[in-house]
Amino acid sequence: MTLLLNPAMAATDPPPVMEARRWLQGAVFPADRPLINVSQAAPVDPPPLGLRQALAEAALTNDAAHLYGPVLGLPELRAEIAAQWTDSYGGTVREDQVAITQGCNQAFTAITATLAGNGDEVILPTPWYFNHKMWLDMAGVTAVPLPAGVGLIPEADAAARLITPKTRAIVLVSPNNPGGSEYPAETLAAFRDLCRAKGIALIVDETYRDFDSRTGRPHDLFADPDWDDTLIQLYSFSKAYRLTGHRVGAVVASPARLAEVEKFLDCVAICPSQLGQIGALWGMQNLGKWVAGERVEILNRRTAMVGGFAALPDWKLLGCGAYFAYVEHPYPMDSDALAKRLVHDASLLMLPGTMFQPHGNPDGKRQLRIAFANVDGAGIAEMFRRLASVRL
Amino acid sequence: MTLLLNPAMAATDPPPVMEARRWLQGAVFPADRPLINVSQAAPVDPPPLGLRQALAEAALTNDAAHLYGPVLGLPELRAEIAAQWTDSYGGTVREDQVAITQGCNQAFTAITATLAGNGDEVILPTPWYFNHKMWLDMAGVTAVPLPAGVGLIPEADAAARLITPKTRAIVLVSPNNPGGSEYPAETLAAFRDLCRAKGIALIVDETYRDFDSRTGRPHDLFADPDWDDTLIQLYSFSKAYRLTGHRVGAVVASPARLAEVEKFLDCVAICPSQLGQIGALWGMQNLGKWVAGERVEILNRRTAMVGGFAALPDWKLLGCGAYFAYVEHPYPMDSDALAKRLVHDASLLMLPGTMFQPHGNPDGKRQLRIAFANVDGAGIAEMFRRLASVRL
Repeated sequence: MTLLLNPAMAATDPPPVMEARRWLQGAVFPADRPLINVSQAAPVDPPPLGLRQALAEAALTNDAAHLYGPVLGLPELRAEIAAQWTDSYGGTVREDQVAITQGCNQAFTAITATLAGNGDEVILPTPWYFNHKMWLDMAGVTAVPLPAGVGLIPEADAAARLITPKTRAIVLVSPNNPGGSEYPAETLAAFRDLCRAKGIALIVDETYRDFDSRTGRPHDLFADPDWDDTLIQLYSFSKAYRLTGHRVGAVVASPARLAEVEKFLDCVAICPSQLGQIGALWGMQNLGKWVAGERVEILNRRTAMVGGFAALPDWKLLGCGAYFAYVEHPYPMDSDALAKRLVHDASLLMLPGTMFQPHGNPDGKRQLRIAFANVDGAGIAEMFRRLASVRL
Repeated sequence: MTLLLNPAMAATDPPPVMEARRWLQGAVFPADRPLINVSQAAPVDPPPLGLRQALAEAALTNDAAHLYGPVLGLPELRAEIAAQWTDSYGGTVREDQVAITQGCNQAFTAITATLAGNGDEVILPTPWYFNHKMWLDMAGVTAVPLPAGVGLIPEADAAARLITPKTRAIVLVSPNNPGGSEYPAETLAAFRDLCRAKGIALIVDETYRDFDSRTGRPHDLFADPDWDDTLIQLYSFSKAYRLTGHRVGAVVASPARLAEVEKFLDCVAICPSQLGQIGALWGMQNLGKWVAGERVEILNRRTAMVGGFAALPDWKLLGCGAYFAYVEHPYPMDSDALAKRLVHDASLLMLPGTMFQPHGNPDGKRQLRIAFANVDGAGIAEMFRRLASVRL
């Protein structure tokens, strides 16, 4: 019996991170050369003890932590985000403009489901975040690639030429995954102006905002009193507070759009994990200083990445920031084959650029993404020693 | 600026449970007549202390509880389900035929996304579970209603007449939400035979299986060695172990289909909550006897429901079992208006049948769903006193 499949799902790529994990099956790593896994933007340590204690206490003593909550999330967490965003972005964000999701990926799926259906189009700068592309594919929405320019920064003028009557949104990720690039405030403002003029949505995924190298606010989008007629912001608690296993993210948008998001989340989630939300709230209220320290550490690692590639002149660093470096390799082989070779020859797991580029696009074959944020300075130095000694 | 919306999402009904909660806003309940909320199938007490302690200990000492896990769930939990299902259903279920989701609603969305896309059809017996209908609507899939027959049991022969070249699946919920009916094993076998003959999927949602009044296995579907060419089973940990706030469910299907489910879950979830999965596993390994006691208590409440309606001859009990009673009311008003009046006149919150029937279907206007499982005997007696004294 052949498997009955939705053709859109059948045509969707499998999850790259799970695919890469399969490359590790059967691989044996020498004792003096253990695996360095830079494939996923995932903290490797648990959250600070205080947060873990807050979770444990809630599990034991807070009955509500085990029961259904509101579809759009805990009011206290929505209010905390509204207050901190209002404070940090130089504009006003209200509690009814915030919803909580089971992670930022889910925020993206919920938001795009309110905007675009079968046959519609959404513009994604390339290299893109693969889950964005996968979700659009399975929903029957066409992902229209917008090649990012110099420094992996996309340009609104180029995007304007891609807009058709079917376009529903442009999606930006800043700091960027996979590119590491931090989009200038003027770039974001230009995209906002374009989207508003065309009557489409601007979705800005700021999952990595807490590790931006710039001080002060990264853009002025929220300072616009009418921001919510065009702007939709996505956020994740996973990286800042090491809560990846709890699945907590957020979407900031107009109350009218969140009423549509509520329909989607009622079917896909019912509510976010209560403990996860309790942890995220505790983090927001208690870990500001700790996150600032994490940021400084990650910026140090970034410096090490920039220096390391400067000393490997055959490699080209296309973008670097927050969690990621995106690079062009010097070898006469496709990045897919190279990534597998690096597992076996250098005990390094990184993702090939083909996972972040449209099928058939030649750029991806020369590129690799390195999620370096969770490897310490010694690990980064070791990674560069191995890259320097690889002979292919 | 008008809100740019995916038309399929705009045409989707809002979440009924959230709508019903809004009816409570501003309502004042007399001290001697507090609210009895029978609107949602939700435990009102937390899980047993042992499970809460297991969660607290994991939060404090198990680093993996905070980090990403496999998209399809913890291997230990998948293996435990496989072992217990093999033991209880009289057939073989393997670990690679089980995936974990963020609740059973998500299991439904993931499975139907692998089967049906825009323009396809899925058959749902009516009264239906509203989230199934909502999800199909927003995905552009037509929900084809199959009116349930006597005792709210649907018939395969009637379903056969609804199958078209666009049909991708039939969805059964047993014990039923909202109807409370327990489908006979022969009914399920007839549907399985029909689906197999037509090359479509049979999705059986057994969220309420732990509270079935029948002893022994409820059907023989898994005893068929080729079950996974047709059958897809959905399950929830929310009711059995009072884990609604942790969002843990499961889907049991062929490995090939779960590879497609993995694409969906990678975009919508990345992984289920790790703590939720740890709790579900602890529950499966330690709470069998406790769940059996819960079942007996709920069966007592069911007996009270049947007796109560027998003493209200103007009301008609259409179905009763597991968590739900589904009834026909005697009043010359639509169930929507009646449900709101019951909030104010009797401090009772129950959902109108219109939320479980196609728009315009007259049956829903005479029907109400009562989620009685979380109201104790005294509460049920009080509910009947109030229903008997209502004058409209």
